[in-house]
Amino acid sequence: MTAEPLLHAIVPAGGAGTRLWPLSRRDEPKFLLDLTGSGRSLLQQTVDRLRPLTAGVTIVTGRAHAPAVAAQLPELGAEQVLAEPSPRDSMAAIGLAAAVIRRRHGDVVVGSFAADHVITRPEALAAAVREAVAAAAAGYLVTIGIAADHPATAFGYIRAGEPLGVAGAPTARRVRAFTEKPDAATAAAYLATGEYRWNAGMFVVRAAVLLDLLARHRPALHAGVEAIAAAWDTPERDAVLAERWEGLERIAIDHALAEPVAAEGGVAVVPADMGWDDVGDFASVAPLLPRRGGAAVLGDAPVLARDSDDAVVVARGGRTVALLGVPGVVVVDTGDALLVTTRERAQEVKHVVDDLSANGLDRLR
Amino acid sequence: MTAEPLLHAIVPAGGAGTRLWPLSRRDEPKFLLDLTGSGRSLLQQTVDRLRPLTAGVTIVTGRAHAPAVAAQLPELGAEQVLAEPSPRDSMAAIGLAAAVIRRRHGDVVVGSFAADHVITRPEALAAAVREAVAAAAAGYLVTIGIAADHPATAFGYIRAGEPLGVAGAPTARRVRAFTEKPDAATAAAYLATGEYRWNAGMFVVRAAVLLDLLARHRPALHAGVEAIAAAWDTPERDAVLAERWEGLERIAIDHALAEPVAAEGGVAVVPADMGWDDVGDFASVAPLLPRRGGAAVLGDAPVLARDSDDAVVVARGGRTVALLGVPGVVVVDTGDALLVTTRERAQEVKHVVDDLSANGLDRLR
Repeated sequence: MTAEPLLHAIVPAGGAGTRLWPLSRRDEPKFLLDLTGSGRSLLQQTVDRLRPLTAGVTIVTGRAHAPAVAAQLPELGAEQVLAEPSPRDSMAAIGLAAAVIRRRHGDVVVGSFAADHVITRPEALAAAVREAVAAAAAGYLVTIGIAADHPATAFGYIRAGEPLGVAGAPTARRVRAFTEKPDAATAAAYLATGEYRWNAGMFVVRAAVLLDLLARHRPALHAGVEAIAAAWDTPERDAVLAERWEGLERIAIDHALAEPVAAEGGVAVVPADMGWDDVGDFASVAPLLPRRGGAAVLGDAPVLARDSDDAVVVARGGRTVALLGVPGVVVVDTGDALLVTTRERAQEVKHVVDDLSANGLDRLR
Repeated sequence: MTAEPLLHAIVPAGGAGTRLWPLSRRDEPKFLLDLTGSGRSLLQQTVDRLRPLTAGVTIVTGRAHAPAVAAQLPELGAEQVLAEPSPRDSMAAIGLAAAVIRRRHGDVVVGSFAADHVITRPEALAAAVREAVAAAAAGYLVTIGIAADHPATAFGYIRAGEPLGVAGAPTARRVRAFTEKPDAATAAAYLATGEYRWNAGMFVVRAAVLLDLLARHRPALHAGVEAIAAAWDTPERDAVLAERWEGLERIAIDHALAEPVAAEGGVAVVPADMGWDDVGDFASVAPLLPRRGGAAVLGDAPVLARDSDDAVVVARGGRTVALLGVPGVVVVDTGDALLVTTRERAQEVKHVVDDLSANGLDRLR
């Protein structure tokens, strides 16, 4: 698998992953965690996948997490980790990184890839990225559309139109529209058409195209990130950040660019079946884990399970975990907090995190 | 409540309580635990109840536990804790204690009371004990029969016959028979007759009567405990224990005396409704505990419960415990082991303890 040398990856690393509490914490967010028992965090696995496909990887993360990111990725140079003073959503992060990369490397192709997703078939990602780079070189804003294997209601969908007809991108199609997360009936109808893919937030585009689109659709945000990028590799960086950062619009790239540009016919999609999952909760972590006595287990502590099929156990509290007659239970054992719930309720763990603050336990968030 | 001064209590303190693992351990058995959040262990609560009713309390426990028993009961003299070299079941323990007490105090009435049960209405115990002492003084082996409020299958039953007709024991009846633990249908039939009480293993009897009955029904065991008792308060104790103890028959007082003596008409029962429970598993611990957010909680760590009515949480691991959508779950959190099960399966926790050894985790028993 050889890399397309013009591609520079941008990895926005933000989001706490509160549905994975108490494993994920404010100070140790989801992207810094090893959720698969591989010994590599989701961020490290993301970079591991991207390095053979790219000429460089730039991480955009919060100031609080920049030291941990750098520690997990010692192979990256210090200039490859861009630290944001505060969260400003994905358009500011990706726009800033694209502007910095263009100043450093010229009008290369950039691709944004989430720091906290799992991809079990990286060869399918590589093939899709090659096509996406070809379509991006032709001027499109290209997204990679995940083959939907069930009518998920937790993801947005991409509706594909006619073939794009760009050399090197034989499976690429024009995007007709992006949709919000659908209800179950709508999702099932989407799948029946064969035209819909999951939107995993992967965008591949020439840096100059991205910034031109931003200038047209969000001129103030464009001016802000360009001003900051101009100062980034100079002694003025902190001063300009202090002056401009907090004023940047908070908006996702989907709303800022993908949706309006799709309406203009400027977005392409390359379909891919890469074993993708956003591992949004403990139920979605389970299939990635080895089984012990019928339970899916993450962590090194001993786990004894009796009559507890499809249980999910995170055994990171250093203590033996014994299950008896609790199929489908989710047990997350950490040093200072223990969660017991079920796969069915795993999506609601964020409410438990809200309860922490209401009960004077904010330190455990 | 004044005490009947002739009564000397015997408290056999043995049994690990494996169905309460990981709270109960080989080195910290059930009777040493505070299972009600009162700040007093079951043993301490037992002695607290008995001291106003008795002229003395003698504990019989294993050598390994004698230091912990003495530490929990500093008000007892060293001579009031009899340490057994190894477990020899209840007849040897009670027989030895009765023989030692007779040598020390003469032909007093002795009463055996388990060290690891809960009684929520001690005034009912006190009233029953007064009647039992009167019947014992008249020569009977007297048991206290617990009012059965549901058709339990975990206890043996006592079938009462005609009134005893002894002064000072107006509610006492002759015992027709002791039964083994029944099945559910049999238990329901027992309750319908009104003649049955639960057998809580409480026996009140004159020391001389007990030892005479033992000499008649189990002469070898009688000879053994008398020989050991004769040496107990002498420098020969250890030598005689070493010579005789391991040869003592292992048998429960129920089989050794209560059943055969009942067949001869020599056993009486005093009924009592004292809020008794043997707290044999975590389901039976639950009603004794305060509620937090619908969950019954033992321990000081924070517990947050959402949609988890009738959960039982032991929060002694020093960690916050959060429950989400797990009604009826049992979570027992300790420093080195965590159990997750349900009230329905609580009786089977002993199998989990067996699994520990099979998995090289014997140290956690």
